[in-house]
Amino acid sequence: MEKQTLLALLEQVQAGSLSPQEAVLRFKLDPFEDLGYAQIDHHRGIRQGAAEVIYGLSKTPEQIAGIVAAMAAKDGKNILITRMSAQAAEQVGKQHPLDYDPISKIGVAYPDPQRTADGKIVVATGGTSDLPVAEEAAKTAECLGNEVVRLYDVGVAGLHRLLSRLDVLMQARVVVAVAGMEGALASVIGGLVDCPVIAVPTSIGYGASFGGVSALLSMLNSCASGVSVVNIDNGFGAGYLASMINHL
Amino acid sequence: MEKQTLLALLEQVQAGSLSPQEAVLRFKLDPFEDLGYAQIDHHRGIRQGAAEVIYGLSKTPEQIAGIVAAMAAKDGKNILITRMSAQAAEQVGKQHPLDYDPISKIGVAYPDPQRTADGKIVVATGGTSDLPVAEEAAKTAECLGNEVVRLYDVGVAGLHRLLSRLDVLMQARVVVAVAGMEGALASVIGGLVDCPVIAVPTSIGYGASFGGVSALLSMLNSCASGVSVVNIDNGFGAGYLASMINHL
Amino acid sequence: MEKQTLLALLEQVQAGSLSPQEAVLRFKLDPFEDLGYAQIDHHRGIRQGAAEVIYGLSKTPEQIAGIVAAMAAKDGKNILITRMSAQAAEQVGKQHPLDYDPISKIGVAYPDPQRTADGKIVVATGGTSDLPVAEEAAKTAECLGNEVVRLYDVGVAGLHRLLSRLDVLMQARVVVAVAGMEGALASVIGGLVDCPVIAVPTSIGYGASFGGVSALLSMLNSCASGVSVVNIDNGFGAGYLASMINHL
Amino acid sequence: MEKQTLLALLEQVQAGSLSPQEAVLRFKLDPFEDLGYAQIDHHRGIRQGAAEVIYGLSKTPEQIAGIVAAMAAKDGKNILITRMSAQAAEQVGKQHPLDYDPISKIGVAYPDPQRTADGKIVVATGGTSDLPVAEEAAKTAECLGNEVVRLYDVGVAGLHRLLSRLDVLMQARVVVAVAGMEGALASVIGGLVDCPVIAVPTSIGYGASFGGVSALLSMLNSCASGVSVVNIDNGFGAGYLASMINHL
Amino acid sequence: MEKQTLLALLEQVQAGSLSPQEAVLRFKLDPFEDLGYAQIDHHRGIRQGAAEVIYGLSKTPEQIAGIVAAMAAKDGKNILITRMSAQAAEQVGKQHPLDYDPISKIGVAYPDPQRTADGKIVVATGGTSDLPVAEEAAKTAECLGNEVVRLYDVGVAGLHRLLSRLDVLMQARVVVAVAGMEGALASVIGGLVDCPVIAVPTSIGYGASFGGVSALLSMLNSCASGVSVVNIDNGFGAGYLASMINHL
Amino acid sequence: MEKQTLLALLEQVQAGSLSPQEAVLRFKLDPFEDLGYAQIDHHRGIRQGAAEVIYGLSKTPEQIAGIVAAMAAKDGKNILITRMSAQAAEQVGKQHPLDYDPISKIGVAYPDPQRTADGKIVVATGGTSDLPVAEEAAKTAECLGNEVVRLYDVGVAGLHRLLSRLDVLMQARVVVAVAGMEGALASVIGGLVDCPVIAVPTSIGYGASFGGVSALLSMLNSCASGVSVVNIDNGFGAGYLASMINHL
Amino acid sequence: MEKQTLLALLEQVQAGSLSPQEAVLRFKLDPFEDLGYAQIDHHRGIRQGAAEVIYGLSKTPEQIAGIVAAMAAKDGKNILITRMSAQAAEQVGKQHPLDYDPISKIGVAYPDPQRTADGKIVVATGGTSDLPVAEEAAKTAECLGNEVVRLYDVGVAGLHRLLSRLDVLMQARVVVAVAGMEGALASVIGGLVDCPVIAVPTSIGYGASFGGVSALLSMLNSCASGVSVVNIDNGFGAGYLASMINHL
Amino acid sequence: MEKQTLLALLEQVQAGSLSPQEAVLRFKLDPFEDLGYAQIDHHRGIRQGAAEVIYGLSKTPEQIAGIVAAMAAKDGKNILITRMSAQAAEQVGKQHPLDYDPISKIGVAYPDPQRTADGKIVVATGGTSDLPVAEEAAKTAECLGNEVVRLYDVGVAGLHRLLSRLDVLMQARVVVAVAGMEGALASVIGGLVDCPVIAVPTSIGYGASFGGVSALLSMLNSCASGVSVVNIDNGFGAGYLASMINHL
Repeated sequence: MEKQTLLALLEQVQAGSLSPQEAVLRFKLDPFEDLGYAQIDHHRGIRQGAAEVIYGLSKTPEQIAGIVAAMAAKDGKNILITRMSAQAAEQVGKQHPLDYDPISKIGVAYPDPQRTADGKIVVATGGTSDLPVAEEAAKTAECLGNEVVRLYDVGVAGLHRLLSRLDVLMQARVVVAVAGMEGALASVIGGLVDCPVIAVPTSIGYGASFGGVSALLSMLNSCASGVSVVNIDNGFGAGYLASMINHL
Repeated sequence: MEKQTLLALLEQVQAGSLSPQEAVLRFKLDPFEDLGYAQIDHHRGIRQGAAEVIYGLSKTPEQIAGIVAAMAAKDGKNILITRMSAQAAEQVGKQHPLDYDPISKIGVAYPDPQRTADGKIVVATGGTSDLPVAEEAAKTAECLGNEVVRLYDVGVAGLHRLLSRLDVLMQARVVVAVAGMEGALASVIGGLVDCPVIAVPTSIGYGASFGGVSALLSMLNSCASGVSVVNIDNGFGAGYLASMINHL
Repeated sequence: MEKQTLLALLEQVQAGSLSPQEAVLRFKLDPFEDLGYAQIDHHRGIRQGAAEVIYGLSKTPEQIAGIVAAMAAKDGKNILITRMSAQAAEQVGKQHPLDYDPISKIGVAYPDPQRTADGKIVVATGGTSDLPVAEEAAKTAECLGNEVVRLYDVGVAGLHRLLSRLDVLMQARVVVAVAGMEGALASVIGGLVDCPVIAVPTSIGYGASFGGVSALLSMLNSCASGVSVVNIDNGFGAGYLASMINHL
Repeated sequence: MEKQTLLALLEQVQAGSLSPQEAVLRFKLDPFEDLGYAQIDHHRGIRQGAAEVIYGLSKTPEQIAGIVAAMAAKDGKNILITRMSAQAAEQVGKQHPLDYDPISKIGVAYPDPQRTADGKIVVATGGTSDLPVAEEAAKTAECLGNEVVRLYDVGVAGLHRLLSRLDVLMQARVVVAVAGMEGALASVIGGLVDCPVIAVPTSIGYGASFGGVSALLSMLNSCASGVSVVNIDNGFGAGYLASMINHL
Repeated sequence: MEKQTLLALLEQVQAGSLSPQEAVLRFKLDPFEDLGYAQIDHHRGIRQGAAEVIYGLSKTPEQIAGIVAAMAAKDGKNILITRMSAQAAEQVGKQHPLDYDPISKIGVAYPDPQRTADGKIVVATGGTSDLPVAEEAAKTAECLGNEVVRLYDVGVAGLHRLLSRLDVLMQARVVVAVAGMEGALASVIGGLVDCPVIAVPTSIGYGASFGGVSALLSMLNSCASGVSVVNIDNGFGAGYLASMINHL
Repeated sequence: MEKQTLLALLEQVQAGSLSPQEAVLRFKLDPFEDLGYAQIDHHRGIRQGAAEVIYGLSKTPEQIAGIVAAMAAKDGKNILITRMSAQAAEQVGKQHPLDYDPISKIGVAYPDPQRTADGKIVVATGGTSDLPVAEEAAKTAECLGNEVVRLYDVGVAGLHRLLSRLDVLMQARVVVAVAGMEGALASVIGGLVDCPVIAVPTSIGYGASFGGVSALLSMLNSCASGVSVVNIDNGFGAGYLASMINHL
Repeated sequence: MEKQTLLALLEQVQAGSLSPQEAVLRFKLDPFEDLGYAQIDHHRGIRQGAAEVIYGLSKTPEQIAGIVAAMAAKDGKNILITRMSAQAAEQVGKQHPLDYDPISKIGVAYPDPQRTADGKIVVATGGTSDLPVAEEAAKTAECLGNEVVRLYDVGVAGLHRLLSRLDVLMQARVVVAVAGMEGALASVIGGLVDCPVIAVPTSIGYGASFGGVSALLSMLNSCASGVSVVNIDNGFGAGYLASMINHL
Repeated sequence: MEKQTLLALLEQVQAGSLSPQEAVLRFKLDPFEDLGYAQIDHHRGIRQGAAEVIYGLSKTPEQIAGIVAAMAAKDGKNILITRMSAQAAEQVGKQHPLDYDPISKIGVAYPDPQRTADGKIVVATGGTSDLPVAEEAAKTAECLGNEVVRLYDVGVAGLHRLLSRLDVLMQARVVVAVAGMEGALASVIGGLVDCPVIAVPTSIGYGASFGGVSALLSMLNSCASGVSVVNIDNGFGAGYLASMINHL
């Protein structure tokens, strides 16, 4: 609980404008709304600088629409829905304004695009197959108010492709490096730029790629400084963190 | 190769002030110095905003002293040496001014402490045993010009210890969360703050902690947004990245 | 074999009311019934305080109905069937009275609900996706005569959701903590309550969650005392053990 | 934070006997004591029914003695120190009354043995080598006020050893089953008794025992109901949980 | 190459009844027949005491029928086909006499059942779900001329089921112990009998059973002597080895 | 960047025939062509001696056809497409001349077969099931101008099959050894021949073969000298490397 | 419990020569002797055909000597002690007649060598480094009354070494195949002989041998029939099982 | 067995100059020499083009000296001993001429250096710590008659170090790429050169490098063509294979 809120509440109690019992209730009831199947956190925008995000994978279209409705009722905008199936998008889109991208499976309900940070976020991929994860990162960052530059299919096995775009890389405030297989892209970029690199291993590959574990280990062991890692295929997490850093 | 440098060199060649052969040599010889056992990268300060760091673990005291001497000869200051043994520190300290901390095993040669960024970096640990890794992060960040606030032994099994220090957490520009065993600290902090959290799994634990793998997996799967992860026990990497973000 | 039964039998033999050969047979034939595809254990109710449970996953509807019939023939009630498909439920339901819940996939044949223990069992989950496993635990405990309080979607990334329900947690005699991904819920609850916490890792997650291994390791390494762990997705096992503890 | 404490504090604030600022401080300062290297949790006895336990492995004798002194100053008794080296015991023993057992490496400072629960806890092991872990469980439970019955070297490869002691097993309120190698003891006992079985895998074995992983997996997959598992070699955790259940 | 054959051939060469060139050809051409997609080994019956077995999983019905035809052309009988789909069985059955069992997926072409060994092979399983693997072992052994006694669903969580059938176990010349989940059956049987026990882990289970790895590790770590292990779900291998031992 | 190209460009700049700005552009634009979804590398033929290969698995038929068209427009021949589905082959085959093999899933667009190296490459497999991977290797090598000899189903469990073909093995300039299950073929061949052996583990097997991991580990630990390993099921990689060695 | 013993006891009870209470005691007390630190199983010789074996690794010399004394007091001979350190051997040897072999670390107390089976057991190794494990197998088998033929350093990378000794292999009744690294020896021998092959993976190797896991997996996946596997480095288990089979 | 030798022997038998029995013996006795602890393979030079190599790790100095003596007695030169301790080198050096390098732990007995191949082998490392493994490769290749160029400390985190040496890389006939941590060096080099790249993962690193597993997986998943992999730290294997390729 934030000190400010606590102090404010306590001062109300001291002033007699709030009974202790009511204060206890306030602590309990206010910060989220119980839909039965989910606890919506309306205070998150204040606490974390971005509204709650809906993880669409394990929810029914009805559940998604319900959460969107509850958030919209409190003037929520740019409500981000990740891992949303095309079918869910179709159904939710009938009830709410929705931008949906089938590659990244990202939906934005009540879209209200605004650029709120100055820096550029570069999203780079090792290969063409990493595109869905990269787009999840890019679209997330764009929805959160960032300018995103895409640098796709610049894997380390053809280094000149990456080196020829150094000017783009050099302008980044944060780089999101998305790669499967041996995941070396993060290290190579990390050695070239002087800004944070968020590495996203992807499950692209076969055999000893072990569903992304090989890329994950590679990235965790990066000998380049300034590189940190998120979960396999977690494009959303990388885009969210990139935005957070870009807004500092 | 940076576009600016390339253009400048090419313009010199065009102007006749540099021969093509000399230009080729320039590309090769300039950016690093070959000590035989190591390639020192003098351009890194320009490219990455921080001088090269010496990974002390697999180097002899003589090698460390040699690299320090080469860097000092080019006016290097605040030369950071990580995983430095007490013996190495003793020997290097005879030849060069050196601040050495036996807990974090961090040495700083030609120390020249300066605060170069405004924000605060909070370094938090789950337990007392995580202290050496946390100090590696903290000392690294301090050496790179940051103010560091320590919040140790605030693990999630006694949540009130963490909650009572929320004011400190809330002031952070970046948090480094260091924890072994179940590594839940990163998720809990990640859910409380609105700034980037760099999670450092430690090898503290026994049995199914598998030398830090349990904490690592926990942190990679964090359901809190804004959390990214570095290698097990990689306090240096976390401190370096925290400083990079703090200097944005 | 229990000492009591052995003594009783031996006394019958001593008294001549039972021949040694018959006694040998008694040891063999009595305690279970051989249906060909399964050995039904009618003595289990006596030995373990609860009738045998039917693991429905790998059995045909005919086999399940057959076992139910055999148990019902000996006055079995509240016959619990776990991991029962909707199709199996439909077919078995035609032959026997059956309560079936499609979310937890739990069926109770010859239902006869009775509260047989005083304490409350709290079943908590980290997220909405953990619901099927949590319901398996809750329904199992209810079928075995317990009062169950559900506390869903209270994961550690939004700590206030959990803290606002502390009063509920504090009244528990046993807590079942169900969570996937980083599985930190068990540690946090374990640090708050003073009763046994049974941790159930779920296979919810992706990438480095490795089908529940990440949550499992997290829970095994819990730094909170009083926490023990059952198999991934083993809601039944947790509910059964919770009931056993609640009936002590 | 507990509802009761919160209400009480708020009522004091309402009554004017406590200023809001002081209330904030109270939340922060009260429940633990900061020794620099550790946060001692004096409220834990109230919250969890047992005083904090000192994990001795990574602490210096001085640190252990310091924590003991702080706890004793608040009338702490039966202060449990786990994984304590013989050297540490010798040094701490010079400053404080201490019972120390070199096999389990358990020390009890200011020992004040009292039986506070009626039921019996049976601690069983598969082999002789599992003894140190079993003793850690047994001594922990005894220190927490329980009667413990030991049943050692009753592994499943010689089933008659276990079966001949069924009468002992049958009287248990909780069983702690300690085994390495294939860890089958927990399943066999779990199938025989009608009380909770806490399984403790040990790192005893070689080759494919993988430091206890084989036993751990075995126990997690137990087909017997009522079995839950703690970390490899975590005798303390099992003893603590057994005591908690025995005191219900 | 067998010494006997070599000597015989060399003596023919010495006697002039075989030219060296022909002898070389003989070494090459004789022992197997090349069908293009497979090398049939007609000498195997001589060398290993049992005709070659057809692994049906990755072969088309046409390929299976072709191999059967080639073997039958050299008077092959009791030709064993493992992991044969029902469809393959239907097609092959149209061209060749075939006994097919859909549970074990074992087919025997040109069946000619004969008891060729005296001892009994006991095949035991932990649960009902292990039945397909157990039947693969049993049917293989029967096809190779052995008497097989089945002892199904005698898992260790209900020990009396196993103990009541000790007389059967005691008569075995070899026991095949088939179990998934925690795989403890092999150890318990191994401790009871004085004959070789072949342990077959099965992929039955969920969560931390890891597709049979838990049972496999359990069996490899068996503390009972006389137990050896074959691959997960390898009923055929166990049945074949049991027959080999039974024919010694 | 190659020294030769660099020198040539710089000399043009010195001579005034190229402006520095144009030179910068040249570095960027020349070596590859951007199709949006892929960066085609036209210089690769010069740099690596073989044109780029199209990894067909994650590309749509339209994308494959587009890349083929772009390559053909620059006179590309023998354009290799790996892991190409039958459907993709059908569609691409309507627009471009295409040889397609459904077993290896290899397509060659604008086929122009030529023998460009003298040595023989032997591709050997342990079993019939390894055939698709082996054919991927063989067809790749043939497409790249090599003579390939196939030696299939010569696994180590029937050693005479392999030994009878020693003359073929002995003539190889490179051997590609393809095997699943225990992967011993590579070691046995490695001990027999005096040329490089490229080992390809396959995902053939079940249970503890872990999708090829067992064969992979076996091959990495080969006690025969001259053996190196590629990824599981990576027939293409082995064929490509074999061709590279054969063309030295 | 054996049926025979049970019947006999029950008949005594019927006849009145044994009271029920005494019978109960008899079941409990007879079959083993409790030394405090170990339960000696005197009936094992009857049940399993060989006296109990002392696993020396985790026992003190005093404990070993104590168990030996207890067994000798009941006329035990050829008491096998495995993994016995040289120091333990020296101390035990002062109190009891003892044959000790420092390579296999096998001790035999009260040695009384007798050939009790006709067949030969061949123990083969892949390399020189596997010798200690092989000797553990060989010495165990010899102590249990078998003739053992050693065939060392015949690894598959030099196949002619193995093939030149085929006559020896062909005479075996059982083969114990001991190998580390890629563990292919078991498969190759399994394909050559027509008797059971017991495969023993050893921890010999480095890197991806993972302490014997690579060899273990190789052996479990053997495509040769008649091969089963024991734990890594478990020479004793292999020798014991080989003897058991040889005595059938 | 080679066809030539077989034909020759058979012709001798036909001609009567060799009896069949003697021919059998010849097959057995000729190709190697039995020292008791090792089978020396004198034919290997003929079969494989290089004399046998002595793996020094698990052999006593006496054993090494004995094998050297046996090989020298047949005019062996350049006898390579790998993983030889300094102590062993000292002792062997007293009996035989020996070149020993303490970094690579390579000894060459009866050294007779000759350049026998034209091409250059480049050995590159990612960092300074990889040097011992790289030197094992380099020294092995030099001992086998190759010219070796070293390119050390050119890891991908400072790409310019590698790019500035492209001229050296481009001249290689084979490259050995040695790297620990994320192992990306092999992919980057593989994308730059047009010759075979042998990747050697090293155990350098900490945490999630898992003793070289991370680098190993990275290299196996290399997206560059022409890359194959040997075991972790297997510098010898890479050097041997590089020499084999260089001599084609």
